[in-house]
Amino acid sequence: MKVVETIAEMRQVRKELEEPVGFVPTMGFLHEGHLSLVRQARAENASVVVSIFVNPTQFGPREDFKNYPRDTKRDLAVLEPITDFVFMPATDGMYPENCDTRVEVGAITERLEGAARPGHFRGVSTVVAKLFNIVQPTRAYFGQKDAQQLLVIKKMAADLDMDLEVVACPTVREPDGLAMSSRNTYLNDRQRQAATVLYRTLALAQERWSQGEKDAGAIRREMTELIKKEPLADIKYISIADAGTLKEVFHRIKPPALVSLAVKIGKTRLIDNVVLE
Amino acid sequence: MKVVETIAEMRQVRKELEEPVGFVPTMGFLHEGHLSLVRQARAENASVVVSIFVNPTQFGPREDFKNYPRDTKRDLAVLEPITDFVFMPATDGMYPENCDTRVEVGAITERLEGAARPGHFRGVSTVVAKLFNIVQPTRAYFGQKDAQQLLVIKKMAADLDMDLEVVACPTVREPDGLAMSSRNTYLNDRQRQAATVLYRTLALAQERWSQGEKDAGAIRREMTELIKKEPLADIKYISIADAGTLKEVFHRIKPPALVSLAVKIGKTRLIDNVVLE
Repeated sequence: MKVVETIAEMRQVRKELEEPVGFVPTMGFLHEGHLSLVRQARAENASVVVSIFVNPTQFGPREDFKNYPRDTKRDLAVLEPITDFVFMPATDGMYPENCDTRVEVGAITERLEGAARPGHFRGVSTVVAKLFNIVQPTRAYFGQKDAQQLLVIKKMAADLDMDLEVVACPTVREPDGLAMSSRNTYLNDRQRQAATVLYRTLALAQERWSQGEKDAGAIRREMTELIKKEPLADIKYISIADAGTLKEVFHRIKPPALVSLAVKIGKTRLIDNVVLE
Repeated sequence: MKVVETIAEMRQVRKELEEPVGFVPTMGFLHEGHLSLVRQARAENASVVVSIFVNPTQFGPREDFKNYPRDTKRDLAVLEPITDFVFMPATDGMYPENCDTRVEVGAITERLEGAARPGHFRGVSTVVAKLFNIVQPTRAYFGQKDAQQLLVIKKMAADLDMDLEVVACPTVREPDGLAMSSRNTYLNDRQRQAATVLYRTLALAQERWSQGEKDAGAIRREMTELIKKEPLADIKYISIADAGTLKEVFHRIKPPALVSLAVKIGKTRLIDNVVLE
């Protein structure tokens, strides 16, 4: 495994890579969720590139860019057995002075996470467009955990005719259902326990759907009630939306629908989702 | 020469092209200006792709999209001896329903033509990003005649780390100095005569600069006076700006500076420019 730190070197490396090339963009502090993406990239491609870049432009001014957890040494150690190249550009390498171009993916970026985090998806789509242009992957791997991000990247790639495949990978969960996330590290023991309410609530929605409940309002009410039983949980949103447009569904659910939620546990904002098929 | 009409076929063709690949994106109705770009692409590359696509998203609602001149038969005839592939996608091939992603190049798109034509450069940068992703050229050729467009494309390519070279080609002029443009076809004889005022005015600026005049205000005044002598000319703007940022210069000119103007002759809006080195 080789670590590449500049765009120029990454371009050079890319020219020599055996095709197809699998690419996993990350912000580091890797957990089993990331590693499942890298393993799938490994299984499906001749070469695997992982990027580690904590992208400042996708954090809001009051968000946790500065404190976002970082542990490069451990990241490199866990990647070593399954990765060919790790691309770790410097911030001013990715964003030289006067860098002023943005990729905007439109209406789907304005709902859910986009409504709560203005500019977040502009930052995501722009940095991913840049990374795609540098790494030029055959396939790029994203987790279903960040369902809206996955949709935004898929839509960007399709709308801009990017010559690559965006591959969705299932959410990896802790034994008690909590979706793996680098931000879970912010939780103390009591909060970590409370955080299981996200998946329990999604599992409830999934169960009610399987039992034949079609009304979005009814399911949303039951979800709300369950979360409210957890005193540490502060609901940011509970959404049942069309899985393609992310438009909120208020009455009869037509599958596939994305059931997603954002809940604050203490100061930590967690998100999770399931798809009703 | 082969005509390619779908994105899927163009991708297929691209895989077989001999490198390097030169690309000239056009809106058709080709004149000597376009052909000079194609010839330079021919001279510098093993393969040459020209696109013809009248891009609706770069026209404002009151602009001339519907009436923009088209003559595909003649275009193909003049390209035949110097082009390998002509990419002529359908509008709904390039913009399927729900296509919602936009590339925004920031501050330089808000000045000059961008101020006069809101959304114009968003349309240009987005369609060129798409064409670049489809054709994947080694080099792409743009005319200095559309100086701001050239700058926007160069900035987009740099900011988004696109793996290609944007090549600027000199403005091609009629014997009397009028810059070649597909829109010149809108002019009647009297207007065609009046249109020479654009280049005469730019030549005056160039001459005063060569003579040692450094004050932008003084040069702008002389330019204005000269245009006002032409009764058919309606000045939209006269600009002396930093050639990199396009910020207007009001006092001492520091080269390189872009001297550009937009003038309406009848209903036809013409632009032209020179660079003070």
